[in-house]
Amino acid sequence: MLLAAGFADYPLDRLVRLAAAIEVLHTATLVHDDLIDGATTRRGTATLHSLVSGHATVLVGDYLFAQAAYLCSRTESVRVMGIFGQTLMAICDGELQQLFSAGDDRMTLERYLEKIRCKTAELFQTATQTGAILSGADEDQIAALATYGLKVGLAFQVVDDVLDYIGDEQTLGKPVGGDLRQGTLTLPALWVLQNLPSDRSVRQALESGGEDEGVVRTAVRTVAESPAIAYSLGVARQLSMEARAALAGLPDNASRAALEAIAEYVVSRSS
Amino acid sequence: MLLAAGFADYPLDRLVRLAAAIEVLHTATLVHDDLIDGATTRRGTATLHSLVSGHATVLVGDYLFAQAAYLCSRTESVRVMGIFGQTLMAICDGELQQLFSAGDDRMTLERYLEKIRCKTAELFQTATQTGAILSGADEDQIAALATYGLKVGLAFQVVDDVLDYIGDEQTLGKPVGGDLRQGTLTLPALWVLQNLPSDRSVRQALESGGEDEGVVRTAVRTVAESPAIAYSLGVARQLSMEARAALAGLPDNASRAALEAIAEYVVSRSS
Repeated sequence: MLLAAGFADYPLDRLVRLAAAIEVLHTATLVHDDLIDGATTRRGTATLHSLVSGHATVLVGDYLFAQAAYLCSRTESVRVMGIFGQTLMAICDGELQQLFSAGDDRMTLERYLEKIRCKTAELFQTATQTGAILSGADEDQIAALATYGLKVGLAFQVVDDVLDYIGDEQTLGKPVGGDLRQGTLTLPALWVLQNLPSDRSVRQALESGGEDEGVVRTAVRTVAESPAIAYSLGVARQLSMEARAALAGLPDNASRAALEAIAEYVVSRSS
Repeated sequence: MLLAAGFADYPLDRLVRLAAAIEVLHTATLVHDDLIDGATTRRGTATLHSLVSGHATVLVGDYLFAQAAYLCSRTESVRVMGIFGQTLMAICDGELQQLFSAGDDRMTLERYLEKIRCKTAELFQTATQTGAILSGADEDQIAALATYGLKVGLAFQVVDDVLDYIGDEQTLGKPVGGDLRQGTLTLPALWVLQNLPSDRSVRQALESGGEDEGVVRTAVRTVAESPAIAYSLGVARQLSMEARAALAGLPDNASRAALEAIAEYVVSRSS
């Protein structure tokens, strides 16, 4: 968000409030997500709902949403506030879609990308788009930076979904196979379902609802050792390239170089 | 909110968006409250969490918060949006206080009023205050209408807490004694604790954590038949009078007459 404001003015006070609003909004969604997913660890430490009641967790998440809305109002930009509200709706909508499609294997690449757009990439897009708006960038630049944020967000989530199969549990701070254990079908498992129809492990893991840990572990190994990983990382690299391409019309300055480096980082990270 | 906008301009489109934002915000808090309280009925019909999973209920509440923030941004008033965010923080703070003070009998009238201010009266105040702001009322009028909303909200909640002891279950759409059953100490029970120290029924109901229905029913009867009811209704009537007094400096028009009638209604209602 701060880098996206690096092509026009740089109203630091208002940018910092917006950056804080986005960070707090993200935290609010994580607090509720971890409750919904029953996750006990996040970033290697205990999740809130594993320490206090589910009720208190709901309210703390709500409080953080409120604080994000308040911080956002302190940007004093009506346009930024409207985008902020719409983004939060899209995030909730994405989570509801995920909740109600758990165990549903009628997934396509298109539906997968739409789901991760709502779940993850909308917030990246909002960060770069609103940073550009607050800086007073022109409309072409705002659109380019919005596209950049969207594509980086999609690439980030695809890699995240790959790491859920091949990541190092120590580095990730959480066990692998979490998605399959919750009946969430992401790109690597989708590839196996569609391209290795004779393999039943992924389908069995989804059907067992994550209850049978042995079945989940077998499916995770099948996906991790299949071409699904190379295919998924190829999709992520394509998205990362499109993100960098979106920056082509912007001034070639330090902000742009840093944004390009971020687009490369999200597809090369290992945790 | 609409009546509070009746003393200056009346920008209907923006007022309707704000009224919708406040209604949706209220609904969002009810969705999460009913989940937290384990309430199965609201307004005589099944609550959302009794029909779908707790997880979906959290997300639907979040979605409604987001929609409220978006509707609020469409008022195009930075000031209104700031107040909206702060109000939502106060509401969550009030709920967290209630959650963490459940079973705590070191309550005073002052702490009780502070709690119901956060829980209920803030939203009433926000409605009248922001309605006045959007209408372009002068600062004295905005302050007067904010005070009116606050006092009406406090009076409303005191009566609500009385009805939880003496209301008709059919008319209320929910069983009496709900507060005590959840370990929530409101004004009528507080009066009994402080003024009838030899009576142990309320303390026993709080200590049983609502587990023992017989104990709860005895305590409800004790409170309902004590002077606590007349005392609490006296507090509500005082607040209602202060609400009407706050309107004294406003033009004597139809909006003011209706606001005065509302202040009277909240202390005379029976459901």
